[in-house]
Amino acid sequence: MNIIVAGGDGFCGWPTALYLSKQGHDVSIIDNLVRRKYDDELKSNSITPIASLEERVQKWKELTGKEIRTYEGDLNHYDFLKEVLKREKPDAFVHFAEQRSAPYSMIDREHAVYTQVNNVVGTLNVLYGIREVVPDCHLIKLGTMGEYGTPNIPIEEGYLEVEHKGRKDVLPYPKQPGSFYHLSKVHDSHNIMFTCKIWGIRATDLNQGIVYGLDTDETQMDLVLANRLDYDGVFGTALNRFIIQSTIGHDLTVYGEGGQTRGFLNIKDTVRCIEIAAENPADKGEFRVFNQFTEEFSVLDLANMVQKVAKEEGFNIGVAHLENPRVELEKHFYEAANTKLRDLGLEPHLLTDEVIREILQTVVAHKDRVIQDNVLPNVTWK
Amino acid sequence: MNIIVAGGDGFCGWPTALYLSKQGHDVSIIDNLVRRKYDDELKSNSITPIASLEERVQKWKELTGKEIRTYEGDLNHYDFLKEVLKREKPDAFVHFAEQRSAPYSMIDREHAVYTQVNNVVGTLNVLYGIREVVPDCHLIKLGTMGEYGTPNIPIEEGYLEVEHKGRKDVLPYPKQPGSFYHLSKVHDSHNIMFTCKIWGIRATDLNQGIVYGLDTDETQMDLVLANRLDYDGVFGTALNRFIIQSTIGHDLTVYGEGGQTRGFLNIKDTVRCIEIAAENPADKGEFRVFNQFTEEFSVLDLANMVQKVAKEEGFNIGVAHLENPRVELEKHFYEAANTKLRDLGLEPHLLTDEVIREILQTVVAHKDRVIQDNVLPNVTWK
Repeated sequence: MNIIVAGGDGFCGWPTALYLSKQGHDVSIIDNLVRRKYDDELKSNSITPIASLEERVQKWKELTGKEIRTYEGDLNHYDFLKEVLKREKPDAFVHFAEQRSAPYSMIDREHAVYTQVNNVVGTLNVLYGIREVVPDCHLIKLGTMGEYGTPNIPIEEGYLEVEHKGRKDVLPYPKQPGSFYHLSKVHDSHNIMFTCKIWGIRATDLNQGIVYGLDTDETQMDLVLANRLDYDGVFGTALNRFIIQSTIGHDLTVYGEGGQTRGFLNIKDTVRCIEIAAENPADKGEFRVFNQFTEEFSVLDLANMVQKVAKEEGFNIGVAHLENPRVELEKHFYEAANTKLRDLGLEPHLLTDEVIREILQTVVAHKDRVIQDNVLPNVTWK
Repeated sequence: MNIIVAGGDGFCGWPTALYLSKQGHDVSIIDNLVRRKYDDELKSNSITPIASLEERVQKWKELTGKEIRTYEGDLNHYDFLKEVLKREKPDAFVHFAEQRSAPYSMIDREHAVYTQVNNVVGTLNVLYGIREVVPDCHLIKLGTMGEYGTPNIPIEEGYLEVEHKGRKDVLPYPKQPGSFYHLSKVHDSHNIMFTCKIWGIRATDLNQGIVYGLDTDETQMDLVLANRLDYDGVFGTALNRFIIQSTIGHDLTVYGEGGQTRGFLNIKDTVRCIEIAAENPADKGEFRVFNQFTEEFSVLDLANMVQKVAKEEGFNIGVAHLENPRVELEKHFYEAANTKLRDLGLEPHLLTDEVIREILQTVVAHKDRVIQDNVLPNVTWK
């Protein structure tokens, strides 16, 4: 299968490109390398040193004989995107290429506008490109569980059966996103659903939970293939951030009470979920939504788990309840469906002490790279 | 009350500015005059000759002694917007300033991207501007009934009480918009709701039905105050378009079966609804949604009503069922709530034969201005 991985230089995209390549798919990457530029802007870094995209794919070819073609460019440039689609004629287009940090989108007006325009226009261009060049191509779009917010009813996979005043319908699940970034994904979902209806686009929207972990079997093959790992207040996400904090003796930064419950998954499951979606394409005109996470934890649960393992490894750290920079409920009902990917064959990697220990041990080797000033949150929602 | 009417040179905005000024409010207009430029682009026109914005407000001052200040500029230019907010310190910001045609947004990729970026960024800027300069200002934002689509359950005003798996919540009403334009309004609604929550913005989202009519008491005072009136396949909306078609002996262009049912209101009610919203501001942090229409009709109902009155006036025209350029249900359930504005004092102008006759007679005087090539739809959804 010819598969384009847009955003294939990023934290999820890179391991996905390798994994799909290893499975025998003909993979190419589109990336504008902007994730590396955000690091420059924020004076931040990946705790793991990462090679250039060019070095990465060269090493992959050396090790496996498999070629991953790369196209450096921006989905916002339609002519560029169209050229790539014409050359590759992809069967599946995996779309990770969005600004994906909630705090980044909340920095100020410019970052909010940038995030929404970048993400919404990029996706509109992909939709027009598929329509114009490869109408049968399956769009596999990364959404987020954060699109749903925290309703007081169970979260379903994309749709909600409603009975109201004696009548029934199945409607798009109501969305209550919690940042300009999450909002951009909601805008995308609505746009994609519409084009499935009018143009017969086939699309799978993967509402992904918070991804933790670092390595996949492929990224572990060589240091040049190493994946990026973020720990800073802007791009670092809960579990990874906690593990890294523990290795530098920093208290684990829980925002508020820590009762915020979310869906999580291991990066090893991310890459497998993409494969499952690709191998089981949506029908023509179908807007299919999968909730892509394997377990639910509260932020405080995670902190406690990390604290315990860290202690066993000789790192004695506390849990610091910071003033919550976000506007969100810190105690709430949360119950989300996630059976569709399981039904198609996903076998989850669950979060055990051993998994935490393994990430922690990998991190220790690089802990001198941590820039302490970046650990605390410095973007507020208010 | 100091009120800014953004989009105050347009079909709804201009009569609203005059009406609010007449009621004694201190009104200013922001407009980038782009609606006039769309006419140039589409080689189209208003059937009524319209004066420049400058001439309009000058005449208004001559006739009433009331000043309406004008700011020519674009909401997408944040510095400009901020300056106006600083100067005016508005109590209410009425936001009509969006690209408002569904067919225009469907012309091609460029028009889709333009519509979404223009509308979404303009509204984001207004939200940031209010937050930064006038945090108590009440945002009165024009949405559209088209945000809801045509669900198989009754449409409520913005929110839906849901019972699901034994639990209850009140959630944002699920949206199924039918064009890139309608989608842009859905994106706006989500963005506004979020800023109400995090910044305490007070906002009223007016999901307006299809507006018909031409004159208000104010626009009728002088020819220089005349309102624009669109009949073309891109900007003309159902009832007005039918009336104008009838005066030039053109069959009434019903798309498909004509069973598409929508909410409608008279332009005289539009201006009153804005006044009602302004006089009853939303609370701090409240995202309030009103459905702003007075009656429901199917497109075929309207065609039949116009055909009858036109015949009485000596215009014998037929009803032509064109192939539907849109992707939409042509027969469907439709029942939408609209009590909130009524409860606050709206007394609807209902659609009678006399109302149709009056618009028709006004139009007759200008029928030589109709560009026949523009009457038929030339933008398709497929």
